[in-house]
Amino acid sequence: MATLVEVTDAGDPRLADYRDLRDVSLRKHVEAEHGLFLAEGEKVVRRALAAGHPARSFLMAPRWLDGLADVLEASDAPCYVVSEQLAEEVTGFHVHRGALASLHRTPLPDLDTVLAGARSVLVLEEIVDHTNVGAIFRSGAALGFDAVLLAPRCADPLYRRAVKVAMGAVFSLPWTRLPDWRTGLDLLAERGFTTVALTLADDAVDVVDAVAGQERVALVLGSEGHGLSAEWQAAADRRAVIPMHHGVDSLNVAAAAAVACYVTAGRARG
Amino acid sequence: MATLVEVTDAGDPRLADYRDLRDVSLRKHVEAEHGLFLAEGEKVVRRALAAGHPARSFLMAPRWLDGLADVLEASDAPCYVVSEQLAEEVTGFHVHRGALASLHRTPLPDLDTVLAGARSVLVLEEIVDHTNVGAIFRSGAALGFDAVLLAPRCADPLYRRAVKVAMGAVFSLPWTRLPDWRTGLDLLAERGFTTVALTLADDAVDVVDAVAGQERVALVLGSEGHGLSAEWQAAADRRAVIPMHHGVDSLNVAAAAAVACYVTAGRARG
Ligand SMILES: C[S@@+](CC[C@H](N)C(=O)[O-])C[C@H]1O[C@@H](n2cnc3c(N)ncnc32)[C@H](O)[C@@H]1O
Ligand SMILES: C[S@@+](CC[C@H](N)C(=O)[O-])C[C@H]1O[C@@H](n2cnc3c(N)ncnc32)[C@H](O)[C@@H]1O
Repeated sequence: MATLVEVTDAGDPRLADYRDLRDVSLRKHVEAEHGLFLAEGEKVVRRALAAGHPARSFLMAPRWLDGLADVLEASDAPCYVVSEQLAEEVTGFHVHRGALASLHRTPLPDLDTVLAGARSVLVLEEIVDHTNVGAIFRSGAALGFDAVLLAPRCADPLYRRAVKVAMGAVFSLPWTRLPDWRTGLDLLAERGFTTVALTLADDAVDVVDAVAGQERVALVLGSEGHGLSAEWQAAADRRAVIPMHHGVDSLNVAAAAAVACYVTAGRARG
Repeated sequence: MATLVEVTDAGDPRLADYRDLRDVSLRKHVEAEHGLFLAEGEKVVRRALAAGHPARSFLMAPRWLDGLADVLEASDAPCYVVSEQLAEEVTGFHVHRGALASLHRTPLPDLDTVLAGARSVLVLEEIVDHTNVGAIFRSGAALGFDAVLLAPRCADPLYRRAVKVAMGAVFSLPWTRLPDWRTGLDLLAERGFTTVALTLADDAVDVVDAVAGQERVALVLGSEGHGLSAEWQAAADRRAVIPMHHGVDSLNVAAAAAVACYVTAGRARG
């Protein structure tokens, strides 16, 4: 049973995990240093715990206690009970979903564990926006993809905003980091995947043709601003485009991911 | 030629159009009352002007003047020149794209003007998130859609965040508001469109089948939280689903729009 601890001082050091949630660079630092991440809202907190992340603590206003009674019953972590005003003061925003939890990150699985049995995977090179990372996880899960691999510089799927937008998919879809950017795509090719770089490059073929008949496909997506690196475009087995109209340069990366996942999930088998 | 006016007092009433840009409810009020909207960044400012929106004024730090010299040359509106710090103080955030402009809204075109020659249109019922509205415009334009129609309660495509995310598509893609929620879909049916409600309803057919062979298609999308209203689901000619996997409930509405536009754009002709 979690110990309920009433806290009335916004400066209380026990609330450190929850401080200044809107300050992205501060949070990155704090969360990496302590190996923690935050979940927001009853549903997401439940999913994070169910996925095997032990709680460090909970923070909530009294009216949220009932909804999570069973969760608190089953946990040893302290639950800090605060007024909604104090929660806002500490976190820096109005916590309208109520319950927050600080959870332990667990070691990332190795590549072969994540790829076991997978036929369709996403590879994200350097997506910087947490909303896009979360949206890509959600679409990947919804459209039948089996795993997500992240290059070393891709934004963190366990960042609060990404977790929220993914609607739990960061817990249901197996994912890990590629150990090294240079060799990343080779590791996939060695495991029987056709790597398909999504790109606006002139020599890109229609994505429908690029994935047709391929048993295992890895779709590779690039950064919001500058797109995929020249290295990864060259390293991929194929370069593929979703044809554009109306003189528009490109799709948002999450929209491109949704369309490409849809096409790939429906590909004819090889 | 725009008159350059140096402003050093954050309280100066001439900066009223630019105040507290992060306060959504305040901004909605101010922008409706004065019939204005804001564009952010050189590219977006240019596109807004090119689309026929007269400038009320510009606001920028000195180092952004050169990039917009031709635009300022061609305009009669005042250009308030401020330090980056003052810009931040007034707007409430760090304006890293530099140039801001306040522009006049112009009267929305009527339905028949927007639909002239259109084969594929999007209809948004009550999308509340400006990021989603902007993303849907961008995907619609990129994937060859001809127009967007908004129910009376759909969020504003000219809200700063929507304009930014749409990457100019709110200026290139014809759009207007439906005059009335109840009769909205009937107006489309009368004009020869097959209205296809995108929904997770049990009787929904695969979206591929719903649009196949249809000459004119109107894809109808619902709210992030509660989805399409029962009224519009009933009023539509067809109910269609993008099949889901992994026990995921739904796609984000912008991802659903991207996939459905892609499928519809590629439909076989009737
Ligand atoms: C916003 S785009 C980057 C645009 C960048 N200026 C470029 O030229 O690559 C972000 C990523 O989305 C994917 N993407 C967007 N639109 C695409 C399209 N039409 N076809 C293929 N990939 C696309 C690519 O992976 C790209 O790296
Ligand atoms: C996040 S969903 C709304 C979910 C809501 N709980 C429901 O059951 O409708 C927002 C909108 O996206 C569209 N949408 C999302 N996923 C879809 C899917 N798999 N098939 C068809 N439409 C979908 C629908 O228009 C829906 O109204």
